[in-house]
Amino acid sequence: MNEKFESFLKHQKRLAAYNAAFALLGWDEETLAPSGATEKTAELEGVLSGEVYTLQTDPEYKALVKELMKDPALSEDERELIRKTEKEIRLTDAIPKELYEKEAVLTSKSMAAWQEAKKKNEYALFLPLLSEMIELKKEIAKCQNEDGRPLYDVLLDQYEEGFTMERLDAFFGLIRKEIVPLLKLAKNGNKRIRTDFLGRRFPVSKQKKFNRMIAEYVGLDLNRAVIGESEHPFTTGLHMDDVRITTKYRPEMVADTLFSTIHESGHAIFEQGHDERYAFVPASSISMGLHESQSRMYENMIGRSEAFWTPLYPKLCRAFPAELGDVTLTEWIRAVNRADATLIRTEADELSYCLHIMVRYEVEKKIFNENYPAEDLPKLWAELYREYIGVDVPDDRQGILQDVHYAGGMFGYFPSYAIGNAIAAQLYQAMDREINVEKVLREGRPEKVKAWLHDKVHVYGGLRTVDRILKDATGEPFDPKHYVKYLKQKFKALYKTDAPVK
Amino acid sequence: MNEKFESFLKHQKRLAAYNAAFALLGWDEETLAPSGATEKTAELEGVLSGEVYTLQTDPEYKALVKELMKDPALSEDERELIRKTEKEIRLTDAIPKELYEKEAVLTSKSMAAWQEAKKKNEYALFLPLLSEMIELKKEIAKCQNEDGRPLYDVLLDQYEEGFTMERLDAFFGLIRKEIVPLLKLAKNGNKRIRTDFLGRRFPVSKQKKFNRMIAEYVGLDLNRAVIGESEHPFTTGLHMDDVRITTKYRPEMVADTLFSTIHESGHAIFEQGHDERYAFVPASSISMGLHESQSRMYENMIGRSEAFWTPLYPKLCRAFPAELGDVTLTEWIRAVNRADATLIRTEADELSYCLHIMVRYEVEKKIFNENYPAEDLPKLWAELYREYIGVDVPDDRQGILQDVHYAGGMFGYFPSYAIGNAIAAQLYQAMDREINVEKVLREGRPEKVKAWLHDKVHVYGGLRTVDRILKDATGEPFDPKHYVKYLKQKFKALYKTDAPVK
Repeated sequence: MNEKFESFLKHQKRLAAYNAAFALLGWDEETLAPSGATEKTAELEGVLSGEVYTLQTDPEYKALVKELMKDPALSEDERELIRKTEKEIRLTDAIPKELYEKEAVLTSKSMAAWQEAKKKNEYALFLPLLSEMIELKKEIAKCQNEDGRPLYDVLLDQYEEGFTMERLDAFFGLIRKEIVPLLKLAKNGNKRIRTDFLGRRFPVSKQKKFNRMIAEYVGLDLNRAVIGESEHPFTTGLHMDDVRITTKYRPEMVADTLFSTIHESGHAIFEQGHDERYAFVPASSISMGLHESQSRMYENMIGRSEAFWTPLYPKLCRAFPAELGDVTLTEWIRAVNRADATLIRTEADELSYCLHIMVRYEVEKKIFNENYPAEDLPKLWAELYREYIGVDVPDDRQGILQDVHYAGGMFGYFPSYAIGNAIAAQLYQAMDREINVEKVLREGRPEKVKAWLHDKVHVYGGLRTVDRILKDATGEPFDPKHYVKYLKQKFKALYKTDAPVK
Repeated sequence: MNEKFESFLKHQKRLAAYNAAFALLGWDEETLAPSGATEKTAELEGVLSGEVYTLQTDPEYKALVKELMKDPALSEDERELIRKTEKEIRLTDAIPKELYEKEAVLTSKSMAAWQEAKKKNEYALFLPLLSEMIELKKEIAKCQNEDGRPLYDVLLDQYEEGFTMERLDAFFGLIRKEIVPLLKLAKNGNKRIRTDFLGRRFPVSKQKKFNRMIAEYVGLDLNRAVIGESEHPFTTGLHMDDVRITTKYRPEMVADTLFSTIHESGHAIFEQGHDERYAFVPASSISMGLHESQSRMYENMIGRSEAFWTPLYPKLCRAFPAELGDVTLTEWIRAVNRADATLIRTEADELSYCLHIMVRYEVEKKIFNENYPAEDLPKLWAELYREYIGVDVPDDRQGILQDVHYAGGMFGYFPSYAIGNAIAAQLYQAMDREINVEKVLREGRPEKVKAWLHDKVHVYGGLRTVDRILKDATGEPFDPKHYVKYLKQKFKALYKTDAPVK
């Protein structure tokens, strides 16, 4: 291997060592750390962040990356890694130091104000900080804008490279046209779906056993993973051989927990499957949407299918005979796929989820393209929820204050969630052509799914762009039509007849 | 505060941040990390160690410490901190780089060889590495020896400052004279002590509840601590507001677990009680013996006393009515204080413990003062166990291979354990004069004990020498006579009559 590229990997490994420490500290804070530890731990994390900043802005390192940009001997994947790194450095360098520092201070203040505002259900408490954050983000995006693009495109690109408003307008245009009416159809059909049993009390100790089994069943390697518990489920990892997911158990939430475990397992299986050669290249370079495509595919397309549950449902009934004795597989499948018009994104079903995202996309476009006044955002939010989802927003806590993202200044992030679903659908259809997914799931062989995804997606980690991965795996670049087609087929079947979803 | 001293503390805080990361990684490896993670985690830890080494050997930092050595404006505690730091730097700088690197490689090889040798019960597999380690340690000690002291004194000083062979010979001379005969007395009296109930099966879930209660009862602040589980119990910490202990549960080991929890709680209470001003000064500067004095005091002098159990034993019986229904408080106290001649240090009772240490002290003196041949060490070990403890060593696994210390090159470490017990006895007697320990324990007020120890010991952390702390707290420097007196009184009472230990 090229000596300079080796130096580059060595520097990446140093960054990976700090990332591992931060991952463990973060995991520990959510799962175990004592409440009294917060202040001092944060102080020491601040010290370590300073060390990372020094590493990331090291002039020698930056010069090395610049040199490697011109190196003709690199492989395609190596070149891509250098390109991404150089871009990250460029974006960071473009921010004047005073804005950088202002952002850190403002983010911390804004997070506190948002928490307070959400607790008190009072948007006015968050408004001044939100306005300031929007102005700052515009200013930063202006600094980073090298070619006169619209500012919102500058932001979008940082979360999902290559996904401009032009592409997203087409994507959400399709969603608006096809999915908004479909959700109305679902709402009207819900009286035919039985859900009483989902609220029964399933003993937590038995749930834990079953969730562990199902995580391993879908392909999580428990020799290289930990399953913990936390208030909000998440996936993190020290490196590809130590990936961690959390789940939240409640007796009356058996289905939520199961699908949350499968979702996080999807993320974790992706992390475990990276190329060993790049094990210590920080995962930050992985596309958010690609990551989300794996969790959503496992959770929804695989995990909520009748084929998946055909071999598993008898086991679930044996584990919970009192709770599921009177429930058929068909009833189980229909209940866990039921779609509805609801208010909270994180609790949304598969069908309406993209509509929640579309609301946020439209809101952000107005903010950044039209200088929409921040004080009117709750009104806009309510209008869009009524129009797309068909619900009235009763208050800001269940409205614009529900998500943490704006408090953290993460404008442009939400579309990745919808992109992830669409990537999943596109991959799924290609995979299905090759291995007949329904058949292998019915036969209890989910390892076939994992193997396909491993070869086409997981092994590349953050090495390739979404379009490149999709092109190799499915024959075409990103195209949201597959997602819309998938949703239409699935939910029309679910709601048109009483037959279960295939 | 002095600007230079502030820079010093800032540098210490950087070190503390890495220490916290290492503490959490270490804790996690013992309690939770997946087995497959080991290799990559070790690799990343190696990277972080390199960062720490750079910090510790930073020329600017070393120059700052040198300057502060001459600063007349420092307070006494500040001066002491600088003195210790300068000494550490000096000792590290004295080691030529090639020896330093050789030590790292040899330690890792030697640990592997020791594990193999212990598993196969074959000293010969460990012997070549042990011989090499002894030679290397001699060579390193020679480099660090500034004033022609005996080499073993150079080693001893690094684990327990100020404790030379001259002092330890006097200490162990007293132990040999007084405790060896006392153990024989105990052995003969053991038929009068009932222990059948200790092997009964105590349900683990109830044990967990009781152990948590007792940790909190003795004074562990659970808002700033975590209790975990691991194969070998230990205490670690990210900082004084996040201290962690582990316990090991087995149904048939209720007493071992209880006293192990109290022992680790003693360590943790010490850590939690440091002066906030020095919260981020790495704990490495705390005397090993002083630390051990707190765990042993809580475990043995307090935790195994009848006074301590007077308010608690009824609770223990309520938690385990089937297991302890036929056991009186007196029987419980006598059983958990029973002394015996055994082979394994870590399982030794309070009375014989110091004899196990004395064996190791004599072995190490022979190695370093007389160039005793490594191949004959098992023979020497067996002779000393026969002489001091009165047992025959059946094999090396239960003999010289039992401890990890020599594989890690930690010669000179063992005496700290005995010193810790002696410090505890000396402190206990002074505390008893002031607060009447037996009375406050009988009344269920262990917080009085914690408060006394806090003011006299915990708050100083690593700021003062053992002799200084003892002088202020007890009126005299370290004197082992208190320990011997304590053991004699306690065990003569236990074995002479059928009355319980007070």
